[in-house]
Parts: sequence; C-alpha cells; structure tokens
Amino acid sequence: MDAMLIEGEAWTSSLYRTLQKAVEERKDSIDVWYESPAVELIQDAKTKIIHGVKVDNKGTILNICAKNGVVLCTGGFENNMQMIQDYLQLPYGYSKAARYNTGDGIKMAMEVGANLWHMSNVAGPDLNVLNPETNTAFAYAIQGKKDSLSTGFATQNVIFVGADGTRFTDESLIPNHGHVNFHGSWTHMPVSLPAFAIFDETARLSQPVYPTWSEGNVEEIEKGLIVKADTIKELAEKIGVDSDKLQKQIREYNSYCSNRKDPIFGRAKDTLKPIKKAPYYAMELVPSFTNTQGGPERNANSQVLDVRGHVIPHLYSAGELGSMFSSIYQGSGNLGECVAFGRIAGQNAAAIKNDTTQESVMEGKIALKASWQEPKEIIPRSGEYLGEDRGIGGPIKVLVAMNNDEITNIEIIYHNETRGVSTNAIDTIIQSIIKNQTTQVDAVSGATVTSKALMNAVKNAIEEKE
Amino acid sequence: MDAMLIEGEAWTSSLYRTLQKAVEERKDSIDVWYESPAVELIQDAKTKIIHGVKVDNKGTILNICAKNGVVLCTGGFENNMQMIQDYLQLPYGYSKAARYNTGDGIKMAMEVGANLWHMSNVAGPDLNVLNPETNTAFAYAIQGKKDSLSTGFATQNVIFVGADGTRFTDESLIPNHGHVNFHGSWTHMPVSLPAFAIFDETARLSQPVYPTWSEGNVEEIEKGLIVKADTIKELAEKIGVDSDKLQKQIREYNSYCSNRKDPIFGRAKDTLKPIKKAPYYAMELVPSFTNTQGGPERNANSQVLDVRGHVIPHLYSAGELGSMFSSIYQGSGNLGECVAFGRIAGQNAAAIKNDTTQESVMEGKIALKASWQEPKEIIPRSGEYLGEDRGIGGPIKVLVAMNNDEITNIEIIYHNETRGVSTNAIDTIIQSIIKNQTTQVDAVSGATVTSKALMNAVKNAIEEKE
Repeated sequence: MDAMLIEGEAWTSSLYRTLQKAVEERKDSIDVWYESPAVELIQDAKTKIIHGVKVDNKGTILNICAKNGVVLCTGGFENNMQMIQDYLQLPYGYSKAARYNTGDGIKMAMEVGANLWHMSNVAGPDLNVLNPETNTAFAYAIQGKKDSLSTGFATQNVIFVGADGTRFTDESLIPNHGHVNFHGSWTHMPVSLPAFAIFDETARLSQPVYPTWSEGNVEEIEKGLIVKADTIKELAEKIGVDSDKLQKQIREYNSYCSNRKDPIFGRAKDTLKPIKKAPYYAMELVPSFTNTQGGPERNANSQVLDVRGHVIPHLYSAGELGSMFSSIYQGSGNLGECVAFGRIAGQNAAAIKNDTTQESVMEGKIALKASWQEPKEIIPRSGEYLGEDRGIGGPIKVLVAMNNDEITNIEIIYHNETRGVSTNAIDTIIQSIIKNQTTQVDAVSGATVTSKALMNAVKNAIEEKE
Repeated sequence: MDAMLIEGEAWTSSLYRTLQKAVEERKDSIDVWYESPAVELIQDAKTKIIHGVKVDNKGTILNICAKNGVVLCTGGFENNMQMIQDYLQLPYGYSKAARYNTGDGIKMAMEVGANLWHMSNVAGPDLNVLNPETNTAFAYAIQGKKDSLSTGFATQNVIFVGADGTRFTDESLIPNHGHVNFHGSWTHMPVSLPAFAIFDETARLSQPVYPTWSEGNVEEIEKGLIVKADTIKELAEKIGVDSDKLQKQIREYNSYCSNRKDPIFGRAKDTLKPIKKAPYYAMELVPSFTNTQGGPERNANSQVLDVRGHVIPHLYSAGELGSMFSSIYQGSGNLGECVAFGRIAGQNAAAIKNDTTQESVMEGKIALKASWQEPKEIIPRSGEYLGEDRGIGGPIKVLVAMNNDEITNIEIIYHNETRGVSTNAIDTIIQSIIKNQTTQVDAVSGATVTSKALMNAVKNAIEEKE
C-alpha cells in the first residue's frame, strides 16, 4: 500500500487504520506474526493441494499447517533488482513505498506450478532520487505542480536530461503512477538512463527537493545527493555527460523561457524558468514505482491457477501480487482490488474443504503438522567466531576466522539481502575488511545498510573473541 | 531465426542451410519429426529428473523417453497474445518471423519448476502492417532508408501518427531490432497505439510498401490494408483519429519540409517530403518483432535452473527461449547465442548420466517407456457428424449436430489456434454458421485462416452426412 497512505503525511491513512483496527479487535482469533517470512509452500506432490507454509521465524523453520487454505499476499518485486530487469524493461529501478517486497511470493507460487500474468505492468516509472540509506527512492513525485502528490520541485529552474544531456520529457507534467499520455495512448513513461535533474542556484534556494530535505538542500549537497559546480561545463564533466550537448540544451531551454513556449515537450508556460544563476547543480534520478502488478494468475474466486488454467487447490492470492491489471493504466484501482479480492480470498480460504480427507493428507500427516525444526547448527572451530547484525532483508550472520589478531577469512552463514547490488556489496566489503584488517571500511554506494550491517556483524564476531 | 535468413529473400540463408545439411547427413542417427509438438515434460516427482517428453503426434499422445537429457528449443512467445500483454508492456503485438512460436516451451518449463528470466526483452517493437492472412506482420522494416533491412517506404511522403493524430518518432530512422537511441540510452522504441502511416498519392505511386505488394499498392487498397480518402478530414474520420489534430500535424510537417528541418524528431533532411497530393491514404501499423528473449533461466552449461537456482536434472535449453540477453539491446547476438548454446546444450544432453540408475527411474519404468496412447475417442451419436480441416495451429476438429438439414450445434473437439483473436473468431464463426445455416459466412478479420479452416471442417462434417 502507498507509503503516504500508511505514514499519513499527505492523506489520513483511514483505510489502513480501519483494517488494522479490525484485526486488533479480533486478536483472540487472529494471530499476527512479524519477522516470520514464508519461505516455501507445502504442497502434496500427487493432489497438488497446498497444506501450509514453511516460515523462517528468526532463523528457525516452522511448518504451519493450513486446514482450508493459504492466501498469498506478499506484494510484488519492487526490491528485487534481478526481477526488475527480467520483467520491467528497465536496467534498474527502485521502490518508493514497500521496502520488503522482494518477489518471494512469486517464486513460491512458481514453485508449486502457478502461471504468471501481468508481469510487465507496474505503477511506474516516475523519476526520483535514490535514498542510499534505505535503497529505496524518496517518496512523492518531483515532476508536476506542487500538490498532495508532488513537491513541484521540477517546475522550478530545473530540467531533466537523459544519458546524452538532452531533455526527454515534460517536467511540468506529473506521470500518473508512472504512466503518461504518449501521443494519445497511456503508456509507461519512456525514460533515458542515467537521468539527471539539472538546476541552478535560484532553484536550490526555492524549496527543499523533498519535504524531508533540509532548507536550501544544504545537507543533501554535503551527502553527495546533489553535485555542485561553478559552470555547466564542469557540472557535465562531474556527472559524465557530454558538456557541449548539455550546454546547448540549456541554451535552447532558456530560449523557450524567453519565448514562453516549449515547442518540443509543451512544458507549462508558468514553469518555464531559466537556468542561469551559478553555481549549478545536478542530481541523479532513478526510475521508481509505488508497486508492481505481476504475479500468479488468479480467477474471480481469488484461486491461483497453474499454467494449464487449472486451480491449484487451497491456494489463494490478493493484492498487488498477481493483480488483475494487465497492460493498461490501473489508476487508483489497486486499493479497490486489494479490498475486494482480499475479502474474496479470505472467505474462500476459510471455507471448510471436503477434499482434505483424501489419502494424501493422511500420508503426509507427520510431515505436515506444525513442528519446530532446528536449522543446521554452525559450531565454530578453534579460531572461528560467530557474529550477527540486521541488514535490509533480515539478519546477516557471519563466521570469522582469526589467526591471533589477524582476520583470515569471513564466511556468510545466512543473509537475505537483495540480489545484485547488495550481494555484490557483501563480496566487496569482505575483501575490503580482510585487506585492510579493520571493520571500518567504506560502505558500498547504493547498499549502505547492507554494508554497515556486515561490518557490524564482523565486529560482533571479533568482540566475541575478546 | 529471422524470416529473411530462412527464406533467402535478402540474405543467403547460408547458416540455416549449413545446419540443415548437417542434420540431413546424419539421418541414420537423427530422427526429425514434424507435426509432433511437445505438450508436456515427463518429470520424476521425487528426483525432479526430466525423463522425456509427451508429444502430440496428429492427435495421439506419445511418451518419448530421453535417456540422458531433453533440450528445449521451442522459441519464444511471439504468437501468444496473452503472454505479449503479460510480459512486453504492450496491449498487442505480432511476430514478423516465426508463426508457430506460442510460448509452449515456457509453460512446459514452468510446469517442472523452472525460473524465468529476461521476459520483458524482445527484438522489437518496430511498426509494420499486419497480414490478416497469417496473423503475423509483414517482414522487413518500412522505417529507415531503403536497404537490405528496410523497404524505405516511410521515407517517402509518409508520416507515422499515434492515437491522437500526432507524430511520435523519426520515420527516417530504422529501429535496430525495435530499439532506438532514446536521448542517449538504447531502449525499446516508445509507441503510441493505435498507430498509422499517413501518406499521399505521390507516396502511393513511389513504390510498393513491401516487396510482395502490388505495383502502386492497388491490390492492398482493395483488400482494405490501405484506407483511401479524398481529404485529410475524411481520412481522419475513417480511421477514428481527431481530424483537427491530424490536419494540424500535416500542416506542421509540411512546413518542416519547406524549411528542410524537423525540429521535433530530427527526421533526415532528404526524406522531408510533403503530404499534399490527394487522394490521401492511411495504413494501420502494429508493434512487431523478430523474436522474444524470455524463458527459463539457464546456466553456462545450458542447464535449466529452478526458482532457487538449482539445476533441474537432465533439462537443457538453447536459442531465444530464455536467451542470455537481459534488458540490453541484443544486436545480432541472437544467432551467435543459438549456435554456441545449441552446441553446449546438445553435448551436455547427450553425455551419459550416472544419476539415471536411481530407484525412481525403475519405479517409473512402465509409464516412461515410449508407448502410443490413444486419445479419448469421440463416437458421434445419431445426427452427429465429425469434420476436420487445418488451421494455423494444426487440425481443427468439429462435431456437428444436425436435425434433418438444420445445423443445430457445433462443438469443437480439438484445436490449437492462438488464444485471443483466433479463439474469439471460433465462437463468432460457430454462431454465424448456426444463425445463417451456411458454412459460407464472413471470415473474422485478423483470423482468416482459422475462420476458413473452421468453415471447411463444418462443411466436411455435413458432407459426411450426405
């Protein structure tokens, strides 16, 4: 669900709070478990019935038996870079809402034979700044006029340019959930990457880029989120864009401001503000989205279907995971779908099933009853020490080998960080710690949380020794 | 593989012919079966080993045992409209090469637990005319200058417009396998749909749109592939585009021709030819592609992987089915990949496996040996007659119920036509035949082959009676 809706910064969160309250009022009959992600569906190989889920409860795998049904509502794959590349026609992209939607529900559904649908549809991309602390994009749009959806920063003395230093969109138009009216048809907004917002001193002083940013965006310049230069030429060199093309683009754009007309993209007249007061600034923009739409195919009963269109017995889904919205612009229909199909899925999953008396269930009885299973225990040998800290995806556990005070090896025992930038960061940090013999090494850009958690885990292991 | 490469119209087909010859020379050891599509992989539920495939040999299901491995190389999903919507961010699109790639290999791989990758990458879209006889797009590009890849028609007195009657691209630039340099980054060509080529009498007489079209494109006007009108206003009304916007766009474009400069999309100077000689013409363009890239994930040994990254034993893949090309522009790398990974997959699939002596194989021995299985036989009751003809996807079999000379019901016993337009056509034709009591009804536009095959099948059933 939308970050603003939950955090209440722009709207009142009334829908979310109503649902939350209804759950709390039923706490005698509804157990809510946090930090217990499902890791696998339990399926009978013969009947294909789903009998429950395996969950990872702080490192312990627990089999949860479901008498009548399981509802998958794990959200989409906003934080899974491999799936973004595989399904969204983008080389990269970032969530601006949920931080923990990793596509695990899609993988679990595939593992029990589900068909997928609507995989390339997404409520995005629009362009925002990446927050390296969270590996998600800052929320709100910056395109479009200032309102409850947009900070309006891009309507100041700001243009967006693509990889070659030229403009590719109307900065004054807010992309509706990442969709634009492209010559009469609503399509995903075409973007050139890497993309940058280019602006001048007047724009910097006009407003914080985001409501959470500092006055004059001073802190964000210090943090490196904004690059500063005295000339456009120097700015172009700093961000790796052709400086002749960027200078030409700014001259052209400034002439549109003088003429009060943008003949190329039709930017709104009252937002045609020239870029002319030094120093100049650049800010990298990334494709961002509120949510994905793809996932297991479901029917009108919220039942999940296999690749031949047959129901997978006792498996249901709701929410953005396998949403009914295909390639069209879904508007604000996502919430309506969540409520309607959440209710349908819940009712049907709770309904008593007659097919559970089958032989297969009896056969599987012992394996399927709820039971705590200890994971394989790691017993450190002499000179080895265990350490742990929390990353973005949960605990990061390490086994550090020491020879007196020298760190000779670091082995990852457990992690659930995002594939791609975060897992690459793990390799980099390990090499760096061993090379420099200190846990105070540089964090990997774009994976700060993972980097720091890993350093802390190693530090904790070393302290274990002492 | 590319249509031109096989049919030899533009190039020499030398690669394809070399491979074909090599297979023919080995006919003592290689059996080639046509009209026997694989319909399911045979997998051991416990070991996950792939032991063979079920094939549909003209209506009879045959289990083919594979001693050491199965190589999936079924191509992509160019002809599966549902998958195009689900994976390509397009509401519709058409193959301009293979006619029989329906995504069946992807479904079969999913059914045995394969992970998918690179699903949204496609060698397209570029814009071409749909051939309603084949339900594929005419091959060659029409954008770009005339060469071995393009007919160059769009560089005549022709513009492309989108749903609102405005231009959205540089008609003089050929999209490289559907990719364009979008402000410095190579992306899939953004398209506005429905799209139209708008041209005048001078363009019509300049050349056939495609090499297979008639002189002056006269036959294609008669067939309705080209719409003709005396004025732009009338033309706009015929194709359902805002006539004021289209007239304004043509005036603007003609002014670029006078000024020898297209300030919006930078169309090449020598192609700026005005649209001014009546009558005027419009031709609908559809997104088209040579091939898709997505499918089951494979490793460097051409082994297919499951959603947790484990090898599915004895299953290999090659070609565009799960190509290694992710979100980047694949250039002409597809053929290189076909050759390299075809060889790797073949060698590894043929290598003798030690894991086939497992108990599970013995257990499954009877079920897994090659054996002919008769499909459920349809025995017509009194007043019912069987008929058959060939559609695009293979045989269409019908059971026609007659009351004396009246056709009272038509039941489809078997068909493998494309989901979407073709299956909708089946319903329409059946209703139409029953309503009009004749098999001479209008074919459904876009599904002519399916329509005619169905009419013939019913006709054959009626003749069966007589």
